[in-house]
Amino acid sequence: MPHQVADVLAHKGMAPVIVAIKGEADPDTRARSVAELGWGEIGRLLKTLRRNGCSRLLLIGGISKRPDFTSVLGDAGTLRLLPKIARALLGGDDSLLSKVIGLFEAEGFEVVGMTDMAPELLAGKGVLGRVSPSREAMADMDLALKATDRLGELDIGQAAVAVGGRVVALEGAEGTDAMLERCSQLRSNGRIRSKGAAGVLVKAAKPRQDLRVDLPTVGPRTIELASAAGLEGIAVEAGRALIADQEATIRKADEAGLFIYGIDRPEKG
Amino acid sequence: MPHQVADVLAHKGMAPVIVAIKGEADPDTRARSVAELGWGEIGRLLKTLRRNGCSRLLLIGGISKRPDFTSVLGDAGTLRLLPKIARALLGGDDSLLSKVIGLFEAEGFEVVGMTDMAPELLAGKGVLGRVSPSREAMADMDLALKATDRLGELDIGQAAVAVGGRVVALEGAEGTDAMLERCSQLRSNGRIRSKGAAGVLVKAAKPRQDLRVDLPTVGPRTIELASAAGLEGIAVEAGRALIADQEATIRKADEAGLFIYGIDRPEKG
Repeated sequence: MPHQVADVLAHKGMAPVIVAIKGEADPDTRARSVAELGWGEIGRLLKTLRRNGCSRLLLIGGISKRPDFTSVLGDAGTLRLLPKIARALLGGDDSLLSKVIGLFEAEGFEVVGMTDMAPELLAGKGVLGRVSPSREAMADMDLALKATDRLGELDIGQAAVAVGGRVVALEGAEGTDAMLERCSQLRSNGRIRSKGAAGVLVKAAKPRQDLRVDLPTVGPRTIELASAAGLEGIAVEAGRALIADQEATIRKADEAGLFIYGIDRPEKG
Repeated sequence: MPHQVADVLAHKGMAPVIVAIKGEADPDTRARSVAELGWGEIGRLLKTLRRNGCSRLLLIGGISKRPDFTSVLGDAGTLRLLPKIARALLGGDDSLLSKVIGLFEAEGFEVVGMTDMAPELLAGKGVLGRVSPSREAMADMDLALKATDRLGELDIGQAAVAVGGRVVALEGAEGTDAMLERCSQLRSNGRIRSKGAAGVLVKAAKPRQDLRVDLPTVGPRTIELASAAGLEGIAVEAGRALIADQEATIRKADEAGLFIYGIDRPEKG
């Protein structure tokens, strides 16, 4: 994903510099990075950014694993920032990420978001592929969106699955992929029943989320897992979610007979 | 569980008659049942209850698997009731169970609850075993309880796990046991981190739940799984949850070093 963003930015005449986080970045991104740093190497990160003349910072991706305190005790820069980091690690994901933003801002960087830098990578409105959602799917979509709003208020997760008028899975620390794998199991063990494909994955930003970080993201793998779980399609909020590898993702959805839908909800309740 | 309730009722001078549901009842309950019926055999169920002189009905346990429409097309009694059942199957768990209650009431049975019949089996207040929750665990308990309230408002699940100030897992259609197994995995793959045991499972009734059915239940297996997931303890609402095999469950918690706590919240927000 970050390497695709870099392509878009380069195309706009910018000179993006990629720093990969060890254990988090995909191989393509790592291959194009100027450095690969652990969570703990904040001093080296700041130095790398300054040496490369960076003034604006775009953070891509969430935090799949909570950094371990011992790995964070990385270098001198980290030690100096430790109280801030320690406080950040004790909160939920949101507070962690918003504190990371504050930390970079205090160091003189401008933290920008995808909405400013590459809005063309965000999800559009309505039916995005060739398949349209059924009326039942639209009802499940409403239900799952209500569930993600509740999750978001408590800073828990961004995704929910509803099937046949019932929310069957909510994302916690396991992440969206693991939640979808669970839905496949729920189908094989009879806890979800439907004739043919039914139900929707909804992935949505948290109501008070800073949209500069941890934007809800779907991609080809999401389609594969949603299809394996027997869902009718997936939905994200238009303008508030990233579709990684957009062309491939939509093609994959078309081929699998799944819909991809951009929910139009400009103002959050 | 149902056979233990039958013991308590028999002790009070009642003559309980057990009807087991195929694929749902435990072996001890099945051994003491007068009949074992499928979800679809509602006509036979009503006949069995009347033949045994039953006037009051106590429904024990939730519905782990959604009955399949084809299995529900069981017998003549079912066919007569089919529109009601079909409507019930389309809603969430709550609406399904409350419609099942309505169905039995329409047939002249009084549907009673554990709170009326065997309140001594419900969870007490405060620390129920030998282990007391830490201050951190009390904070996680509050957080997980907030999460179960939100889940309950949407009629989703009854259980949540919070660890270190963060809700990490929410129960959907998978049930509490599978959610706890997930928490073990989240620990082994680094998505939950803590030094030593930390975090709490909270299981609570839905805010608008009919307490005659599907009362939150914990038992020895819950303790085993919570212990395997590295939790510090479990909490239920005092007077609104069942502890199956109470003595064995509390002993098991004591041995594993886990607390069991009954949250005192007589009036639901």
